[in-house]
Parts: sequence; structure tokens; C-alpha cells
Amino acid sequence: MHIFDIFSIIGTIAFAMSGAVVAMEEEYDILGVLVLGLVTAFGGGIIRNVLIGVPVTTLWAQGELIMLAVLSIVVAFVLPMSWIRHWKKTEALFDAIGLSAFAIQGALYAYEMKHPISAVLVAAVLTGIGGGMIRDLLAGRKPLVLRDEIYAVWAMLAGLAIGLGFFKSTIGLLLLFVLVVFFRMLSVHYRWTLPRRYLNHGEYGTGTESKSG
Amino acid sequence: MHIFDIFSIIGTIAFAMSGAVVAMEEEYDILGVLVLGLVTAFGGGIIRNVLIGVPVTTLWAQGELIMLAVLSIVVAFVLPMSWIRHWKKTEALFDAIGLSAFAIQGALYAYEMKHPISAVLVAAVLTGIGGGMIRDLLAGRKPLVLRDEIYAVWAMLAGLAIGLGFFKSTIGLLLLFVLVVFFRMLSVHYRWTLPRRYLNHGEYGTGTESKSG
Amino acid sequence: MHIFDIFSIIGTIAFAMSGAVVAMEEEYDILGVLVLGLVTAFGGGIIRNVLIGVPVTTLWAQGELIMLAVLSIVVAFVLPMSWIRHWKKTEALFDAIGLSAFAIQGALYAYEMKHPISAVLVAAVLTGIGGGMIRDLLAGRKPLVLRDEIYAVWAMLAGLAIGLGFFKSTIGLLLLFVLVVFFRMLSVHYRWTLPRRYLNHGEYGTGTESKSG
Repeated sequence: MHIFDIFSIIGTIAFAMSGAVVAMEEEYDILGVLVLGLVTAFGGGIIRNVLIGVPVTTLWAQGELIMLAVLSIVVAFVLPMSWIRHWKKTEALFDAIGLSAFAIQGALYAYEMKHPISAVLVAAVLTGIGGGMIRDLLAGRKPLVLRDEIYAVWAMLAGLAIGLGFFKSTIGLLLLFVLVVFFRMLSVHYRWTLPRRYLNHGEYGTGTESKSG
Repeated sequence: MHIFDIFSIIGTIAFAMSGAVVAMEEEYDILGVLVLGLVTAFGGGIIRNVLIGVPVTTLWAQGELIMLAVLSIVVAFVLPMSWIRHWKKTEALFDAIGLSAFAIQGALYAYEMKHPISAVLVAAVLTGIGGGMIRDLLAGRKPLVLRDEIYAVWAMLAGLAIGLGFFKSTIGLLLLFVLVVFFRMLSVHYRWTLPRRYLNHGEYGTGTESKSG
Repeated sequence: MHIFDIFSIIGTIAFAMSGAVVAMEEEYDILGVLVLGLVTAFGGGIIRNVLIGVPVTTLWAQGELIMLAVLSIVVAFVLPMSWIRHWKKTEALFDAIGLSAFAIQGALYAYEMKHPISAVLVAAVLTGIGGGMIRDLLAGRKPLVLRDEIYAVWAMLAGLAIGLGFFKSTIGLLLLFVLVVFFRMLSVHYRWTLPRRYLNHGEYGTGTESKSG
């Protein structure tokens, strides 16, 4: 599973930096930036562990990942403005890699513990989006992943595929990984959104957010 | 305890639908609606389990309840507008049934684990209001249950009664259940509020929310 | 460790009252005031326990502390306005005592469980600031500790010192306690802030909050 370690690393860096950037946008101080970065990188995994019964303390065995996240956050804090703009353009790709790696990892955890498929789905989704949700809460924002382009659905489908036992070999998991990244990037590029419903008008829509609550 | 299973079912449906409706009001997409619905239905129980030491993974044995919640959320998403208006009128009753069932169930859990009465109270309150609190946080709202009509107090009193060992028989618990529903509905009907204090004016009040922070 | 019990008591009172005052500022009702007070006093410790693997149920053995917190909250609710103004002036000192006591206590917990230093740091910070963070979330505010004067850093440094094994004797811990209180009060008095970065302007700053997001 060496290849998945690499994905985990990319995902951790991407999530930590996205938390740091959000914190800077909210004008938090360096410690706030650190807290939001760490929470984004590890929050999803912690919630998942609580829900599927993995000891949360396994977190502390991931010393290298924690160090890496701290380093990414510090880098984000000192990065020249032009690089941050550049980062925000390419962020989606790194973030998609993180989403995919984390969702598959989360689903495998739950699957190997012989949890029912509902738990596998929830583990995939929460590992993928949990960190971003806490990040947005701590930044005083509404969770983006619950209203933006299609995001969590790819995590859910990956969880479904694993829960049904479709992808077991390393090759199969790699394929799944690439598929999730690919479809997430398609969602971003074509601004695919999930159906939503505007209660004030009683309409359904998938389009741009023209009416804000 | 067959009768309590029915209350649990009603409560789960009521809480899941209330989460779904709030998510639609905030224009979340279908996945956001799903997440908020599930969190409202199961969030209180999860927090309670963490606090009183029940393994959180017992959640996954409740497969039927999870399916039921998902179904309720999907129904809420496709319900005609006139039905949703109707739902919002009768929501209070279903919600009261949920509050009552969940609070009693939570208190019984803690009581049977021989926790002190403080834990029984907290278990009753958190099982009853925890889901709604997370729902409001994820919707970017201030938790309604902390400022609206009298809500959590009925959960707390139910917890107190169970913690003191007043209601042990099935008949007794049923009576308690009906009492909680009854008083919650009275609070809604007469808009009973708990005392509050306006720091800006140094006054106390129980009345309508004429000054907002 | 008798002296530390006293600090814990002062910290619990200070944190419970600060939660109660924030809830009153947000015009929550008496139950909301109670919930926010309790969450502020015990939330940090609960999160820490989840993260470092101490059973959360140890909370319920602290019956006296819980009673004390409830009492403090009730007192805050009925305190004359002039006293509350007075409280808000001296709050910083009590809060600093709480921060210091809780951070040291949290770090010692993690250290004695032989967790790596990253865990000791996180335990110190979360025990110190976790309650305040949940308080602000439930009050619909952005967490103050992530953007205000230097606060969590003192908790982090205390954690670092304990994690490195510098302070083991009671005298040493007492010294550390006094140092944290002292530096926190200096931060308040001189309005020391951590460096932050304004992404909109690409600048760094430590000064007053002239631009709000």
C-alpha cells in the first residue's frame, strides 16, 4: 500500500494548506492558522474514528504526517502572495487527491472492521469532508461542501464501491482513486452541482446560487 | 419496550425531516440535506454515547432506523410545497414526541449504567437537543433550542425523574413520555419562554425577542 | 497536588462564568446560559480526553466541580449589573488562572500516558482553549482565541515545557503555572497579538483589527 501513503501525504498537505488559507482569509493569527490547518487535515479522520470505533489515539502514531501538516501550514503562512493565488488555482487538484485518498482510506477502515455498508458510506464521506466541515465552522462560515459543486458524492460512491466489495486488489483501489479524482475535477471544471430545492420559491434547481439565504 | 420503539421511530422521522427542511431553507444541495437530516436524527445520541461511555459503534446496529431516516429525508426533499407548509405546522407535535422519546431513552441509558444523577440529566438533555444543536451549527444558525420556547427543560425534568428512580415500570415511563409531550406542546402553544436576561439593558425578561444581538 | 485542585476550581468558576456571560450577551434563556457555562468549563477537557484516550466518563466523577460550575452560572445569572461590569474587568485574571491550570493539567495527563510531544502540546492547547472555542461556536461567534491577543500560545509553551520533561516537581509546576498566568496577563495588558497576515492586501501585521472580514 506504498502508493496510498503517497496519496495520504498529498491529501494531508492539501487539506492543511486549505485550512491555513481559510484562516488567513478570516484574519486569524498564526495560531489560529495552525489550528485550522491541523483541524482540516485531521478532523475528518478523528470523527470517523470515533464513529467506527477506532481508538482516536492512533492519531499520535502518525508523527510524520503531523509534522508535515505543520510544515505545510508554516509554508502557507509565509508564501508570497502570487504563489497563494497560484495555489488557489491548483488547490482543486490537490484537494481532489486528498478527498479521494481519504475517502478510500476511511471506507477501507470501516470495511475491514466488518461494519455494515451504512457505516462504510458514512466513514468514506466523513473522512473526506469532515475536516472541511469543521474548518468552515471554526471560520464562522457555512460548510462549503454541503452546498458547492459535487464533492461528497464522489466520496460516497467510493464508499459504496468498497462497501459492496467491488474494489479489493491494489490495482482496483488505484483505479477507484483515479476515478474519484477525475470526477471531482470534472465537477469543478463544469461546475456540476447537485439538485437543490429553494423552499422560498418551492422550486428545484441545480444552477448558480442567485438567491442567498 | 415495544411501545418505545415506536416512539423512537416517530422521533427519528421527525428529527430527520426537521434537519432536511432546515438544510433546504439554507439552500444546501441534496447531499447537504442528507447530512443535516442524519446529523439531526443521530447526532444527539452520538454525543450522549461519547459522554456516558456507550460505544458509538452501537449506532451501526440500528440499520433500520438509519434507512428510515434516509427515506424520510428523501421524502422531505420531494414533498410538494403545500405539504411542507403543512409539515411545518404539525412538526411541533412530531418533534415533541421525538424529544420525549429520545430524552427518556438517553436518561435510561445513563441510569442503567449507574452514572450519577448529573450524568443522567446531561444524557437526557443532550439526547433530546444535541441533534438540533449540531443541525443549527451546520446550517450557520444560532442553536434555536438555547433561546426559543421552553424545550430542553422538559428533557431535563424527565432525566431528573428517571435519575431519582421515580419512573421504572413501563406504565410509569409511558406516563412520563406523555407528560413531556404534553408540556412541550403547551410551551409551543402558549409560547412559554424561560427567563432570560438582557445584559445590554440589565433587565430580565421572558417575553418576545424584541431586541436582537 | 492540593494546590492544583485550587487552581482547577478557580479555572472552572472562571470558565463557567465566562460562558454564562457570553450566553446572556446573546440573549439566550437560562437553560442556554447553563449549557454554555457547562460547555465552556468542561468542553476542553472532554475533547482532550477523546483525543488522548482517557475515558470521557471520568467527567462524572467530578461531581463537586460540576456542582460548582452550576452554582457559578446561577450566580452569574442573578448578579447585579454593576457586578457583572466589575466581573468583566477582572475576568481576564480568573480566565488566565483557568487557562494556566487547565493547560498544565491537560499536558500532564498526556505526558503521563507516554504520548509523543505532539499529543502533549495538543492536549495542553485543547484543554486550555477548547471550552472557549465551543462556547463561541454555540454563541454564533467566531472563536475569539484564534484571533485575539496571545492566548493559546502560553498553553502551548506550557505543554512544550512539560512534554520536554522540564517541570516535574510540584515546585516546578507551580512556577510554570505562575509564568503562564503572568505572560497571559502581560498579553492582555499590552494587547500583544500574534503575527497575522491579511490575504486581501498581502500584508503581515500584528496590530489592531482595522480591517474586518
